[in-house]
Amino acid sequence: MAVIILGIDPGLRATGWGAIRAEGSALAFLGAGTITSDAAESLAERLSCLYQGLSGVIAEIAPDEVAVEETFVSRDGRATLKLGQARGIALLAPAQAGVSVAEYAPNLVKKTVVGAGHADKHQIRHMVRMLLPKAVAKTEHAFDALAIAICHASHRRTARMRIAA
Amino acid sequence: MAVIILGIDPGLRATGWGAIRAEGSALAFLGAGTITSDAAESLAERLSCLYQGLSGVIAEIAPDEVAVEETFVSRDGRATLKLGQARGIALLAPAQAGVSVAEYAPNLVKKTVVGAGHADKHQIRHMVRMLLPKAVAKTEHAFDALAIAICHASHRRTARMRIAA
Repeated sequence: MAVIILGIDPGLRATGWGAIRAEGSALAFLGAGTITSDAAESLAERLSCLYQGLSGVIAEIAPDEVAVEETFVSRDGRATLKLGQARGIALLAPAQAGVSVAEYAPNLVKKTVVGAGHADKHQIRHMVRMLLPKAVAKTEHAFDALAIAICHASHRRTARMRIAA
Repeated sequence: MAVIILGIDPGLRATGWGAIRAEGSALAFLGAGTITSDAAESLAERLSCLYQGLSGVIAEIAPDEVAVEETFVSRDGRATLKLGQARGIALLAPAQAGVSVAEYAPNLVKKTVVGAGHADKHQIRHMVRMLLPKAVAKTEHAFDALAIAICHASHRRTARMRIAA
């Protein structure tokens, strides 16, 4: 059975999204984009902008499942806080739409898509293009979101095979 | 002119809220409470629960202005991330309802309510009870939320007096 997966790469300045259709091991590109917020606006308005943007994408794509990257906890507490706020919105939007949300560590996403936990941005972009030849994505965030969706497609299948075994 | 202020003390496990009516320097207690999320649920579901709880309070109280405490950035990155996610929800809920949101540093809240930036929980509870004799609040989070609302009542007035001068 085919399933529509929406990957989200959360960020306050720019949140990437990428949607794919997965049927067994076959993957197809559905769409990708970036939702940005204006740094001149208040934090509440910026979060509201991300929420409305993501809710719009969810309404249009109608994903069966959503996957969000786990946030890397940096030593910079202020950066972690900012990212946490944006990530809260990325988790809330699908939950409010009644769609289940899976979370994946950045290293697992890289390992699944590229085969190594410390792949750089170019390798991710390259592999996303190999796996989804028709993918049109303009930003790094959109490519990352597609990688997260691919990661989920792979792991949800493994989990199901384990259950069936 | 009287204004209804809703203070929010964000937290993933428990988010406190406290509502007051301010007319000049006169303050009146309207309500206070705590919205909790179940640690057994997924993070997305917990954030959704906080969002729905806060949206419900905002619909009932119909505040003119909302004030949220700025998050203390701790050395514990994971704790900062958790709080950031909950705080994103506390900022989003009023913004989605079209209510303006002010942010105050914890030390400014304490200094405004108690007169010292490093007041302990007991002093805050004591001063909130002095300023709002009819206040009924059951948790520390609800008392903190009332303190944030009082802080905003004080600072919004000062800002207006400055503009008028």
